[in-house]
Amino acid sequence: MTQIDSAKEGIITTEMKQAAIAEGVQPELIRERVLDGTAIIVKNILRRQLKPLAVGRGLRTKVNANIGTSQDRINLEDELEKLRVSMEAGADAVMDLSTGGDINAIRRAILDESSVPIGTVPIYQAALESGKKGKSFVELGADDMFDAIERHAEDGVDFVTVHCGVTQKSVERIKKQGRIMGIVSRGGALTAEWMKFNKKENPLYDDFGRLVKIAKKYDMVLSLGDGLRPGCLADATDRAQIDELVTLGELAAVCLGEGVQVMIEGPGHVPIDQIEANILLQKRLCNGAPFYVLGPLVTDIAPGYDHITSAIGGAIAASAGADFLCYVTPTEHLGLPGIEDVRQGVIASRIAAHAGDIAKRVNGAMEADKKLARARKALDWNEQIRLSIDPIRTKAVRDLSPPEDASVCTMCGSLCAIKIDNR
Amino acid sequence: MTQIDSAKEGIITTEMKQAAIAEGVQPELIRERVLDGTAIIVKNILRRQLKPLAVGRGLRTKVNANIGTSQDRINLEDELEKLRVSMEAGADAVMDLSTGGDINAIRRAILDESSVPIGTVPIYQAALESGKKGKSFVELGADDMFDAIERHAEDGVDFVTVHCGVTQKSVERIKKQGRIMGIVSRGGALTAEWMKFNKKENPLYDDFGRLVKIAKKYDMVLSLGDGLRPGCLADATDRAQIDELVTLGELAAVCLGEGVQVMIEGPGHVPIDQIEANILLQKRLCNGAPFYVLGPLVTDIAPGYDHITSAIGGAIAASAGADFLCYVTPTEHLGLPGIEDVRQGVIASRIAAHAGDIAKRVNGAMEADKKLARARKALDWNEQIRLSIDPIRTKAVRDLSPPEDASVCTMCGSLCAIKIDNR
Repeated sequence: MTQIDSAKEGIITTEMKQAAIAEGVQPELIRERVLDGTAIIVKNILRRQLKPLAVGRGLRTKVNANIGTSQDRINLEDELEKLRVSMEAGADAVMDLSTGGDINAIRRAILDESSVPIGTVPIYQAALESGKKGKSFVELGADDMFDAIERHAEDGVDFVTVHCGVTQKSVERIKKQGRIMGIVSRGGALTAEWMKFNKKENPLYDDFGRLVKIAKKYDMVLSLGDGLRPGCLADATDRAQIDELVTLGELAAVCLGEGVQVMIEGPGHVPIDQIEANILLQKRLCNGAPFYVLGPLVTDIAPGYDHITSAIGGAIAASAGADFLCYVTPTEHLGLPGIEDVRQGVIASRIAAHAGDIAKRVNGAMEADKKLARARKALDWNEQIRLSIDPIRTKAVRDLSPPEDASVCTMCGSLCAIKIDNR
Repeated sequence: MTQIDSAKEGIITTEMKQAAIAEGVQPELIRERVLDGTAIIVKNILRRQLKPLAVGRGLRTKVNANIGTSQDRINLEDELEKLRVSMEAGADAVMDLSTGGDINAIRRAILDESSVPIGTVPIYQAALESGKKGKSFVELGADDMFDAIERHAEDGVDFVTVHCGVTQKSVERIKKQGRIMGIVSRGGALTAEWMKFNKKENPLYDDFGRLVKIAKKYDMVLSLGDGLRPGCLADATDRAQIDELVTLGELAAVCLGEGVQVMIEGPGHVPIDQIEANILLQKRLCNGAPFYVLGPLVTDIAPGYDHITSAIGGAIAASAGADFLCYVTPTEHLGLPGIEDVRQGVIASRIAAHAGDIAKRVNGAMEADKKLARARKALDWNEQIRLSIDPIRTKAVRDLSPPEDASVCTMCGSLCAIKIDNR
């Protein structure tokens, strides 16, 4: 039985109980939200050892780190180290987006080493295998796509991105309207090319029921990808994006009806004044399904700092109701992230998620800040370090600049306002 | 004549013209906003060579970098390098907050080397000089405080922070209400201590007219400091903070009446859901005077990353109408920033300001993003580097990870969505 099927029967599963403890809420609340589709429990039934992750309404905003090889950078050890660093830095989930080397072996190694849920984008696998067979992606059949998805499910992948909303109609709408960046999602671009070449509808949309069956068997979460997400601010919230979102809402309803857990992926590049509307739209059009956003990046002009541009957008999105943030690293738009980029990306995204949680009154969020504030007021540096989001860095930065008077810091010395105020 | 006095007579000054060109607006618009106090032109009349900086309604959001020695870190060369790096990274103004060494000489050296407006907090000087005379700050007379301010004006300082709103009443309100962090502004804490010891009202409030006269003589902008700003999220938007803001609004009206340019300083540590209300309150209570915010930091738990926590808050503040962002560096709360911290702080703050400018429709802001998006779509890497907010870093990050096919990057290789979409 899937989590939804159990919820329907009034059963509070072990996973719901574990998730409730992690969130500090009642198990019944988790059951209710799984039942109405406003929360999901991310855990493939094959991953028995995995601590389940709940994502959705009223719960702590979660953070995902994307790792994986590329055609230019193939090194399993590096990717396992990125996984380790992601978990150490506090990522709640990791996606293996490998597109280089033996990606079956890489995926399995990552699944073996991970104590957090693992997501993938199986269409990359299909695309790479077509290459190995001397074919172009557009020459693949629908079976190849579904087979790739099933293989990932069988390996224990907990959630998969599937670009089911990229339809002939929505792609037509991009052309009609015009866009600066066109399609910037790899899965979206591949799917659009496939449809054009084959003059057929997207198989993952056309035969969505087949996908639902695979997901159901493993209680694998379907993460309905936004293949037509905007790739720059000027393309945000346009007709193609919203058309796709409407489709994803319909498909999410199908999933819920079939007892399959689902979340919705969202943009991308969005100006600050459009973020709240994007969250509201997603929640309305998709019956409150969990919203998993990439960024959003609030400006296009800061390559090298897109962990910051997306922390801004992610914090606003989380405060408006986004449930799950996909990190962006400083290397976004420029290359495959290295290990330190991964750490930076996770921390920036966690800051955004936490700031959003305070604004939307998530259980316990504000208390963490009060505790650190009290340690700061007491000039208790060890406690400040311990309570901070990245104690290693906090300590390193402080140690870099040792003050003469250990009770203060080198910024203010005897002019420390806290010290004066404490007198 | 001050800029306001000229504006009253219908004169468009050279400074207004220069500012209008920099902003891409009509000079008459600058004159009107200077006249009604919704914009200021930051430039001490003694600084003849300085390009004037306009700050206020409808204009590009500006960024300030704080530099300066501390008692523990005294090195003029380092501070001059921080000034150079601030300007190179695009800071619109720099505050010299030196509190260590020969601060007169340091201030003058910084003024000499700076091509951007310089601000200071003269009360630090008064505090340090009391120490040299073997006195405590609380033993100073009102004259000592005004003398310090006048000396800075004579040196050509373009704007000064003065904590005029820290009154006996507002300090009493902190006590009555309770706060986790108390007073966290150095100027605020010193002033409160002085009032308590001397059982007198804050001289800068009590004899505000004297301050206005000094400012008027040099057309030096009075930056009315928020000495009672919250030092943690839990203290944000409390009665003491708002009481002080009401007072600052009254004082701003006095300034405008006397032809003296004024801006208002704002918090600090503020949860995301309170930022917009803080901007609205400031604008209403202070008749639309320019708002100069420190951060705001949207969580207390991320020391080591407060350039990010404040970029989040700064972007939201700017989008809601804040006019001027004071940067925060990664070293905030832990020590005096080094040179690289200064660069990181300026860039993070510029990202926030720009993202805010897009949201509030500042002239030309969105166009910059469209240009970069077009270069990205064309896979024109040189243009992407040139158009980015920090070309040196953009190039460095890209060069770190050279792709085999120079038209793409190591993230996607042949799966580059842009490349597929361009086919």
